[in-house]
Amino acid sequence: MRASAAPRSVQRLVDEFSRLPGIGPKSASRLTYYLLRAADDQARVLADALSEMKDNTCFCSMCFNITESQVNPCSVCGDGERDPGIICVVEDPLDLLAIEKTGAFVGLYHVLQGSISPIDGVGPDDLKISELLERILTGQVKEVILATNPNLSGEATAMYLHQQMEPMGVHVTRLARGLPVGADLEYTDEITLARALEGRGQM
Amino acid sequence: MRASAAPRSVQRLVDEFSRLPGIGPKSASRLTYYLLRAADDQARVLADALSEMKDNTCFCSMCFNITESQVNPCSVCGDGERDPGIICVVEDPLDLLAIEKTGAFVGLYHVLQGSISPIDGVGPDDLKISELLERILTGQVKEVILATNPNLSGEATAMYLHQQMEPMGVHVTRLARGLPVGADLEYTDEITLARALEGRGQM
Repeated sequence: MRASAAPRSVQRLVDEFSRLPGIGPKSASRLTYYLLRAADDQARVLADALSEMKDNTCFCSMCFNITESQVNPCSVCGDGERDPGIICVVEDPLDLLAIEKTGAFVGLYHVLQGSISPIDGVGPDDLKISELLERILTGQVKEVILATNPNLSGEATAMYLHQQMEPMGVHVTRLARGLPVGADLEYTDEITLARALEGRGQM
Repeated sequence: MRASAAPRSVQRLVDEFSRLPGIGPKSASRLTYYLLRAADDQARVLADALSEMKDNTCFCSMCFNITESQVNPCSVCGDGERDPGIICVVEDPLDLLAIEKTGAFVGLYHVLQGSISPIDGVGPDDLKISELLERILTGQVKEVILATNPNLSGEATAMYLHQQMEPMGVHVTRLARGLPVGADLEYTDEITLARALEGRGQM
């Protein structure tokens, strides 16, 4: 007698939304029912945007950032005014965008596409590490800035990369750790505070 | 010199995700970049699910719940074992599913597709109210349960519906307000507590 289930094609979209990171079953239902009531083309425009993105993008053959299929190497790698002597190593394309937004970096990038995390089954061979070492072996690179995240797997990745690069004679640096701008000493965790002390500089 | 923007088709998907409720620009970027790195078919499967849902569903011509295009009236309205003498009025299909999950209701539904909210420009004519009144005028309906949300716009909608139905001689009820199961008196807001007192029943 119960006839309570949602239509099959509705349930299918709920399931697909639930597979996305940070979207639980409740949010997935909300998004789906929102699209059911939204103007007819919103779901279609989203569907088109999804297919188009997959068709029109690829990874840059040099730095492994996302780029448009017809622009490879990507617009950063292809920019003659940037300094090819400095490579900033990041975990993923969003980190690259975050650094670009600062406007404070004029070198090139290398996107690892993740970080070493044995618990998730991600080892050095799953990342674009050999490609990075090859770029360094060309001899053009003077400095490598390790800009992986300051968390467990990011630090492990940075340590591993440092070990690999040490024999190559390249200058390896790491982003500064310290107090974020606007922070309050009272509420800062002790590890960050310890790092800020260690890294203290001349006024 | 800056060449910092994401590829156009990536930005387009970020923009489309941002249009969804509860998804800000940061989450939209995360979803997009997640899909860029996910197995190639996940974005395509999501795109297909979106198009398919729009193609295969419509609103039930009786209760305005979501239903598959080839099942109209929907499976609830078409279920001969349900009592057509009771109509439960809800704001949207997710509310209907929530009530169905309780297994405690054997009547039919009417989905208003929203609630009266002048601040959002939604008036009675934007909802499926005239269709509800028509169903009641058939004379088959003995009771109408108003199951709109217990918030400002839901209460306003219930009040309006009650006014409209009063001359029709139909029995109009409202879901009980009171303490939710598992609640703690100490942390219950005073309005809920006042409603629970007003609605107190024999042990």
